[in-house]
Amino acid sequence: MTRQELIATIRKKQSFLCVGLDTDLKKIPQHLLGHDDAIFMFNKAIIDATLPYAVAYKPNLAFYESAGIKGLQQLKKTMDYLHSLPEPVFTIADAKRGDIGNTSQQYAKAFLDPAGDFNFDSMTIAPYMGEDSVTPFTVYDGKWVILLALTSNKGAFDFQFIEAQGEQKRLFEKVLERSQAWGNPGNMMYVVGATKADMLTEVRNIVPDSFLLVPGVGAQGGSLTEVCRYGMTKECGLLVNSSRGIIYASNGEDFAQRAADEAQKLQQQMADELRKIW
Amino acid sequence: MTRQELIATIRKKQSFLCVGLDTDLKKIPQHLLGHDDAIFMFNKAIIDATLPYAVAYKPNLAFYESAGIKGLQQLKKTMDYLHSLPEPVFTIADAKRGDIGNTSQQYAKAFLDPAGDFNFDSMTIAPYMGEDSVTPFTVYDGKWVILLALTSNKGAFDFQFIEAQGEQKRLFEKVLERSQAWGNPGNMMYVVGATKADMLTEVRNIVPDSFLLVPGVGAQGGSLTEVCRYGMTKECGLLVNSSRGIIYASNGEDFAQRAADEAQKLQQQMADELRKIW
Repeated sequence: MTRQELIATIRKKQSFLCVGLDTDLKKIPQHLLGHDDAIFMFNKAIIDATLPYAVAYKPNLAFYESAGIKGLQQLKKTMDYLHSLPEPVFTIADAKRGDIGNTSQQYAKAFLDPAGDFNFDSMTIAPYMGEDSVTPFTVYDGKWVILLALTSNKGAFDFQFIEAQGEQKRLFEKVLERSQAWGNPGNMMYVVGATKADMLTEVRNIVPDSFLLVPGVGAQGGSLTEVCRYGMTKECGLLVNSSRGIIYASNGEDFAQRAADEAQKLQQQMADELRKIW
Repeated sequence: MTRQELIATIRKKQSFLCVGLDTDLKKIPQHLLGHDDAIFMFNKAIIDATLPYAVAYKPNLAFYESAGIKGLQQLKKTMDYLHSLPEPVFTIADAKRGDIGNTSQQYAKAFLDPAGDFNFDSMTIAPYMGEDSVTPFTVYDGKWVILLALTSNKGAFDFQFIEAQGEQKRLFEKVLERSQAWGNPGNMMYVVGATKADMLTEVRNIVPDSFLLVPGVGAQGGSLTEVCRYGMTKECGLLVNSSRGIIYASNGEDFAQRAADEAQKLQQQMADELRKIW
């Protein structure tokens, strides 16, 4: 999906909601557990229920890999279903990959190649190994790198805030700055956690036009209002993710309806924010 | 595999060689390509040929994921075969994972859990997201985290050498230092590239006893002699990886014999080095 198509989808749905599919067999409703396709059945129900309110879906690869090869078969079914929808949605492989060049090429093929099993629009990448670990993900037309800058977890404070000697720039700012040469706002986004919304001003100083994928609203405590205040651009420039707050709103038979309710609440707040720019 | 078992294996084989299984359908011998199990057949032949000379095997996950679900089935067959060997070998999932705590738990389950599809002894982890992204990998008995410190690629210079303000310590040194609190030399190793062997003195100042996984000997240009000069400890403390230099020594019908020859050459150099300490 191109940048213009993504912006058009956000305009049409008046939403920049991404639903995180962190599907965990220990947390999904009991009545699904007897089925071989329990993970896919859960995902399909969540997708059907939230589709009016969401522009993007983000399977978290760890939750599929932890169920072994069967889990990845469920991921493939989920992706096939997302590709079959009558309206396009933006898909994110939350994979946090990154390795030396020849290996990153293989990860890009695994998740972004249109001829592969998954054919995601984008994937999350860790920056620690630098340029040659990132650029192989930018070669597919209409596909995106989403580079970790400032993450939403406590451990973000261990290294991401280290200030570079004599530069008054922290590691996450160096990542934002240096990676500008590796892509452009049409094929590179950044992860910036909602739990650090006050940092979004600094982030926008370096990447004024790039889309940001913002996790941490909801279960992790981030505020949508704050994220929009400091991070929204004239073209929106945000995809805000909620995982647990939507998909585990209920673990009863009403789980899909409750997920829709939570997604709708967020979409309505997002529509209010979008009215400020459009 | 515990630290004492690993050291005993190194003593017995007079080797600290790790064979990297970066198995690429484009590079394996033509005569294997007709088979559904081509990747496993190649790996099995490489393992059988190199087993007298190697103490560890490191499948690079990207090469299996890029072949889709079929590729992961080939990885499972490879792991089942490694577990069936009469003598124990140390297994490394070269996966470069790392995510917020609840997600890292899922990755740990995927690759380290004895009840899972793969049951590796260890896996490589990227440090960018800090403590809670790393500690979930240390909870399985006899299993290891192998944390990226200083990688062997060109992109390593983008961020890993950033010096922290007022500390005279670079990012890779901060990673080595801070992670000491997250594990111990019995469950945590570090990746330090052979292409930066002169840095091993600084590394050993911070982690005098930890095992180091050293990629980059061979195809990437690192020197085994230099690595041993600056990195070897009284208990060896090194696993030196070679991938392409061994597994693609030939792409003819003699590929396994040629792989054995290359592995043996490295093992003999390693035996010479080990005689200096034992």
